Amino acid sequence: MTICVTIWNEGRHEKIHSEVAAIYPDRIDGAISAGLAGEGFEIQRACLDDIDQGLPTKTLDATDVLLWWGHIAHEEVGDQLVDRIQSRVLGGMGLIVLHSGHHSKIFTRLMGTNCNLSWRELPEGELERVWVVAPSHPIAEGLPPYFEVPQSEMYGEPFDIPTPDDLLFLSWFKGGEVFRSGCAFQRGRGRIFYFGPGHETFPIYHNIHVQRIIINAIRWTKQPHASGRILENWHRADPIHI
Amino acid sequence: MTICVTIWNEGRHEKIHSEVAAIYPDRIDGAISAGLAGEGFEIQRACLDDIDQGLPTKTLDATDVLLWWGHIAHEEVGDQLVDRIQSRVLGGMGLIVLHSGHHSKIFTRLMGTNCNLSWRELPEGELERVWVVAPSHPIAEGLPPYFEVPQSEMYGEPFDIPTPDDLLFLSWFKGGEVFRSGCAFQRGRGRIFYFGPGHETFPIYHNIHVQRIIINAIRWTKQPHASGRILENWHRADPIHI
Amino acid sequence: MTICVTIWNEGRHEKIHSEVAAIYPDRIDGAISAGLAGEGFEIQRACLDDIDQGLPTKTLDATDVLLWWGHIAHEEVGDQLVDRIQSRVLGGMGLIVLHSGHHSKIFTRLMGTNCNLSWRELPEGELERVWVVAPSHPIAEGLPPYFEVPQSEMYGEPFDIPTPDDLLFLSWFKGGEVFRSGCAFQRGRGRIFYFGPGHETFPIYHNIHVQRIIINAIRWTKQPHASGRILENWHRADPIHI
Amino acid sequence: MTICVTIWNEGRHEKIHSEVAAIYPDRIDGAISAGLAGEGFEIQRACLDDIDQGLPTKTLDATDVLLWWGHIAHEEVGDQLVDRIQSRVLGGMGLIVLHSGHHSKIFTRLMGTNCNLSWRELPEGELERVWVVAPSHPIAEGLPPYFEVPQSEMYGEPFDIPTPDDLLFLSWFKGGEVFRSGCAFQRGRGRIFYFGPGHETFPIYHNIHVQRIIINAIRWTKQPHASGRILENWHRADPIHI
Repeated sequence: MTICVTIWNEGRHEKIHSEVAAIYPDRIDGAISAGLAGEGFEIQRACLDDIDQGLPTKTLDATDVLLWWGHIAHEEVGDQLVDRIQSRVLGGMGLIVLHSGHHSKIFTRLMGTNCNLSWRELPEGELERVWVVAPSHPIAEGLPPYFEVPQSEMYGEPFDIPTPDDLLFLSWFKGGEVFRSGCAFQRGRGRIFYFGPGHETFPIYHNIHVQRIIINAIRWTKQPHASGRILENWHRADPIHI
Repeated sequence: MTICVTIWNEGRHEKIHSEVAAIYPDRIDGAISAGLAGEGFEIQRACLDDIDQGLPTKTLDATDVLLWWGHIAHEEVGDQLVDRIQSRVLGGMGLIVLHSGHHSKIFTRLMGTNCNLSWRELPEGELERVWVVAPSHPIAEGLPPYFEVPQSEMYGEPFDIPTPDDLLFLSWFKGGEVFRSGCAFQRGRGRIFYFGPGHETFPIYHNIHVQRIIINAIRWTKQPHASGRILENWHRADPIHI
Repeated sequence: MTICVTIWNEGRHEKIHSEVAAIYPDRIDGAISAGLAGEGFEIQRACLDDIDQGLPTKTLDATDVLLWWGHIAHEEVGDQLVDRIQSRVLGGMGLIVLHSGHHSKIFTRLMGTNCNLSWRELPEGELERVWVVAPSHPIAEGLPPYFEVPQSEMYGEPFDIPTPDDLLFLSWFKGGEVFRSGCAFQRGRGRIFYFGPGHETFPIYHNIHVQRIIINAIRWTKQPHASGRILENWHRADPIHI
Repeated sequence: MTICVTIWNEGRHEKIHSEVAAIYPDRIDGAISAGLAGEGFEIQRACLDDIDQGLPTKTLDATDVLLWWGHIAHEEVGDQLVDRIQSRVLGGMGLIVLHSGHHSKIFTRLMGTNCNLSWRELPEGELERVWVVAPSHPIAEGLPPYFEVPQSEMYGEPFDIPTPDDLLFLSWFKGGEVFRSGCAFQRGRGRIFYFGPGHETFPIYHNIHVQRIIINAIRWTKQPHASGRILENWHRADPIHI
């Protein structure tokens, strides 16, 4: 069964920062989309400045797995849209939150915490080494024991999230920090995956290991038998055993 | 060190339903407060219809552990108050959510899910047997292997919460259902405890085991060294090891 | 890819108790095997009294998922065989432990606890109602919100296991107990599933919901990319970043 | 109530390696004991070469919290002693496993996995930076956001343990690795804490932050109301609700 993937990208950096446009001439969502080629996914791309902020009900309802990249315009995302996305996740839609999406409305809404972390941006970036701590998890399939992102923005602990249901990746930064960079969560009937690397001024979404992780995460967060319905508040009138 | 406890009770049933007022003539918060006598807590009581919905900033900031009972007026609680409570919990304040508080704004906010469940209310109530599944947890101190609530409202699975960090109690209902009736969660620096029994038309808060659980939960959710500050989003300028 | 399933059954009750032989004329492993028909699994059956206690190295090494039913002869299972099974699980083989297998050497070995529980056997059995608490988990696929086992042996809390990585099913017993009857664990690269119902004197393995759960659990515990190798103690000579 | 602490140390390095004896002239258990001074603990020291391998029943039964340091003689520890320690932990005794104790019989027994990890020993050691990821946990009380161990042996991921019930510390190593260096587990009624730093050729137990962690861990693993009895396999004859 074909998986319907929607890649949502805020899309503002590409408009206003020429160095981002140079690295991602087809925008970040385009680069992510290119990395999914040949996997048989049905892919849609959406941006904040599209009609209905890129996610009209028809699109959202047809999405099996939603990818989310946002950074400088989190506050512009409408609360009613966030309500609808949350409802879809609780009903079984997969959600993959990338990098600075840790502060997006949808992620903090689903986590219940502020998702703060420590961070450092150096113009030239710094080395991030991503270690696999759950090598038999489906999202780690095909990965070496670790891989490196030569230029990355540092995201470090403490990362204010609930304890993940699965901890997949731990990152090491040359400057001296560590980070839970791959975390999976179950909320309602939906699966959520957060992945750290992905700063807009470095070509991280061209990295084949990062691409592999996103592909695996799409397959894992898509759940064939999730009903699409949230768990009801259910009035049971029938105490059949009293 | 004295623990400052604030018992927040919606307080509407007691005004409009005479049978509730008969069971709880001093309101539900009064009954809960009476059950805490002799424990050395410093107790405040607060209601939705009090000034500032019972929780002016000064009160909230002086609270170590907040108890929450609400049911028919969840929607009246102001969003800004919920923001402030959430911030306090993430900074280390304890929170104990009782019975129908599962649908309160503050609980669903902190959980990220809708916290739906199945339920059944019989005029005469039905037997609930509460089993201790984590007997060495501090909240279970002094309890027998199980105890019974002769008249209870049924709350049953599926209960749409994130997997609890600690599962303490499982309830059996005569009518045929089960429920994760005692669940603990860590969010930010704060500890949260949800406890199921507590329907307004039965004298559940007079039960000594229920009182023991609330006392234990107050001690456990109060954390002496929690700083009262949320985890910051922390800009680290200093890569000292590069 | 075909999944190679080995159903291991102690096989003693069927020899010495005629009422068990009457319910399971082809033994318990035969009944379980019949319930897997048409799923495309490659199935082997093994018993304690077979050569090499039914699990010569060749068989074990070719097994993707091992099912384990034992009760009165746990102590006869050889420690070296248990070593080999543990090693295979840590290397990625799936393990499904059924009913009284909670006290088997392999399960207590993998859990690290004694796996004690409370129990009650009535000649006529008693009603067990199995509730699904994780409806979107792959092992719950195709199940109704709950199903009933009309005649069951009571297994109840407290169940002395580590907190499961996934809690799938909770059972209600007519006599007044509850039980975490469906629990999943990750150990090393292997997935483990414990399922409670399955007493030898009742026709539980003929129940279509029980059969569905076992089929789903086989698919879930089989992990296509698990390497079959345990995680090494790995000497890294190369501090490439110092 | 005074906490009775027993510090068990294999004690072999100090006998045969003069450089270890130079750093720890009163042995490792002596150095750990010195770090606990003034806390009001009642402390006993024990070594593998003592009578009954240092842990006669009388000593073990009077121990609230057992610390364990071992390395080159894990196999010499008697299986019956390991049985007794496991039984005590499941009954509520606290256990703190230090550094190379990850491969001790008692730790692998309680975990159910082989507890393998990656490692590198450099003669001069290498910098380990220990990050606090659960700052409000009692074991983290009084710690800064991170601290450094200037000379350490690298222990790195993947670390083959079950998912910890609490993840407290993550270590960064200058050579490029990360490690879950502070992990807490509940098994039966007992609490277990594993802490990574502690190589015998470096003066790590003189570090005040390491001492603080051990002190905190002793208080946390000691549980006032744990009964000292394991959870029974409990025959319940009385189905009072059928």
